[in-house]
Amino acid sequence: MTVLETQGLAARIAARQLAVTGTQEKNAALLAIADALISRRSEWLAANAADLHAARAGGMGESLLDRLALDEKRIAAIAEGVRQIAALPDPVGQVVKTTLRPNGLKLEQRRVPLGVIGIIYEARPNVTVDAAALCLKSGNACILRGGKEALRSNQMAVDILRRALASAGLPGDCVALVEDTDRASANEMMNLTQYLDVLIPRGGAGLIRSVAQNARVPVIRTGEGVCHIYVHAKADLAMAARILYNAKCSRPSVCNAAECVLVDRPVAADFLPLAWERLKEKNVTLHADAEARAILPWAAPAVEEDWDREYGDYQLAVKVVSGPEEAVDFIARHGTGHSEAIITQDAHAAQWFLDRVDAAAVYVNASTRFTDGFEFGLGAEIGISTQKLHARGPMGLEELTSTKYAVYGAGQIRE
Amino acid sequence: MTVLETQGLAARIAARQLAVTGTQEKNAALLAIADALISRRSEWLAANAADLHAARAGGMGESLLDRLALDEKRIAAIAEGVRQIAALPDPVGQVVKTTLRPNGLKLEQRRVPLGVIGIIYEARPNVTVDAAALCLKSGNACILRGGKEALRSNQMAVDILRRALASAGLPGDCVALVEDTDRASANEMMNLTQYLDVLIPRGGAGLIRSVAQNARVPVIRTGEGVCHIYVHAKADLAMAARILYNAKCSRPSVCNAAECVLVDRPVAADFLPLAWERLKEKNVTLHADAEARAILPWAAPAVEEDWDREYGDYQLAVKVVSGPEEAVDFIARHGTGHSEAIITQDAHAAQWFLDRVDAAAVYVNASTRFTDGFEFGLGAEIGISTQKLHARGPMGLEELTSTKYAVYGAGQIRE
Repeated sequence: MTVLETQGLAARIAARQLAVTGTQEKNAALLAIADALISRRSEWLAANAADLHAARAGGMGESLLDRLALDEKRIAAIAEGVRQIAALPDPVGQVVKTTLRPNGLKLEQRRVPLGVIGIIYEARPNVTVDAAALCLKSGNACILRGGKEALRSNQMAVDILRRALASAGLPGDCVALVEDTDRASANEMMNLTQYLDVLIPRGGAGLIRSVAQNARVPVIRTGEGVCHIYVHAKADLAMAARILYNAKCSRPSVCNAAECVLVDRPVAADFLPLAWERLKEKNVTLHADAEARAILPWAAPAVEEDWDREYGDYQLAVKVVSGPEEAVDFIARHGTGHSEAIITQDAHAAQWFLDRVDAAAVYVNASTRFTDGFEFGLGAEIGISTQKLHARGPMGLEELTSTKYAVYGAGQIRE
Repeated sequence: MTVLETQGLAARIAARQLAVTGTQEKNAALLAIADALISRRSEWLAANAADLHAARAGGMGESLLDRLALDEKRIAAIAEGVRQIAALPDPVGQVVKTTLRPNGLKLEQRRVPLGVIGIIYEARPNVTVDAAALCLKSGNACILRGGKEALRSNQMAVDILRRALASAGLPGDCVALVEDTDRASANEMMNLTQYLDVLIPRGGAGLIRSVAQNARVPVIRTGEGVCHIYVHAKADLAMAARILYNAKCSRPSVCNAAECVLVDRPVAADFLPLAWERLKEKNVTLHADAEARAILPWAAPAVEEDWDREYGDYQLAVKVVSGPEEAVDFIARHGTGHSEAIITQDAHAAQWFLDRVDAAAVYVNASTRFTDGFEFGLGAEIGISTQKLHARGPMGLEELTSTKYAVYGAGQIRE
């Protein structure tokens, strides 16, 4: 057996125990984890300092270094996040549906854990704890593979997690870390069908596409976000400008940020200068079609690739459209099915757009930035699914479960 | 573009229209299909006769010929099945959850179609119509690839379906048939990620494993059934024998039939002869472990492979176990996660088993043969999922949908 197979088997055994562990015991383990993250923070910080030192020496840029870095405040927030997960309702055992059949059979469709969840992510040590805590609360074991730049931080985090689990009487094998961070271990993980029930990649588009292309384990794609703001002819243009600014500029690196604005021809000459008044505060680079450039001559000409780019920074594609039909067609061609918004005061146009745009979240008169487990009231999230199978949009604890039918009989046989 | 890509694009366009087609129009199209199946039955029977002639000449066995064959009565039943699907509630547009957030955003999680569904199946022409009707009702376009032995029957069925759709004002491209039935077309279909949202293989274990191994389109595995009847020490043994006989013999070729009986040691000597009294009516071949053979000396000795075999006919594996723990462990190792049953009068043992066995349906004192969309009250089914993602157990119309969040705002932006 390879190292990963050994971890997989251990996780599978741990998952069987965890599936029948009660809510109180799981919550006690989560609180023990939160306490241990605080009491062992100096060890975690030391491991993280070593990662940061190596990353800086390797030439990592400031924004990536910032994502990799831990400090007292961040650790406190991570521990608080674990406490919040302990306070959320336990999805396991919830009865989704009860059916009494004419032959007397009673069916109970109950929520059960998925089993063992694999998560592949980049160099953000907070994900290690968040993901493990969400998996634990939903009764799942997890096998985590973080970025190599965060390896020491992750090793320490997983040591803290496993010891805290053991101290709470649960198997440490509920959480495992893939320490070999070369490509071969990722490929092995993507094909570990015997031990993994699902694989969730979290990170950049390249990572997610690679996993979706190569995995035989069922994958949940998350976080690919080419999101549009469509400004309809009957929009409140001041509102539209505020929403666009928020959707583009409040945090441009995240997946629910807008990458493209579509504006109806009759209001383009009024809207685009108004929008620019805000966007220029952040020196947003515009990539515009010819009609939009006639209004905003300082915009760069958009090339075909601009319509499919997830810029992730202060850049925005701009296009003038003839109306809702063109907007919906354009989004169908270029969107990633994440979050799309129409700004309009026309209820009919809003409904028409809502019915036709195929995305995890479709907004009327609000910023796409709200697509998030906390903002949607799920309490926490493990990612934002952009696929249609199993879960769509922010994934909370329920989305980390499956169901099974418990069928109670009294000797029934089928005719 | 290949033929299949052309079909995929046409299906994608049809699916967009179908997603916003109302329930009444979809039902009218289903009734038009049912009428057309009856009015054009002689054409369908002629095509089927040609398939049967070729299959017989090619040496197809009787039971497969029977699955391939249509007659007036079967066509009437297929048409009636379509009418029943028209009568079921439409899942599309159903609101799963409504959330009002403190910032005034109103979230509606609604059911939407999956999009385009691919189905790969074997030589059963009834599946062509059933699958198309379920997809249509749930707002999905479908691309069907049946077995080559049924090609003429399927071509005629799809012609009937497409013309009936068109006569009802819906795009004929809602249903397409892959006419090229060689292996290359199956491989192309498994990788048609641009046009297929999900692929459902229906058929033997070999087909399903091959699709799960090779597909990049998300797959729903269905119908792999190594199901167990576990006779607990406190079982009503007469009930247990009745249930076992029903689970094994009422229709041994189907996936919810039992393949293995586990019996607790203290009751083995009483139960096994009682069970044999019934099983011998069908000359069931037993593959038993040494302890069971001491009681039933005419049984063949079980070899290791017997514990994983889906016999599909009048054969049964038999094993004596020490109690619930061994039974649950054995099922975890050898079951396929389809349907498992415990027979016991002990409520505690029943609950213990139910909580620990990881399968789509777990029964107490009833036959595994009930795992079926009709028997579970779903009205119809497209297959029985044995995976944990998206759907588990019998898949009805709801399981052919995804969801999206419609978010209604009044200018909200995220802080």
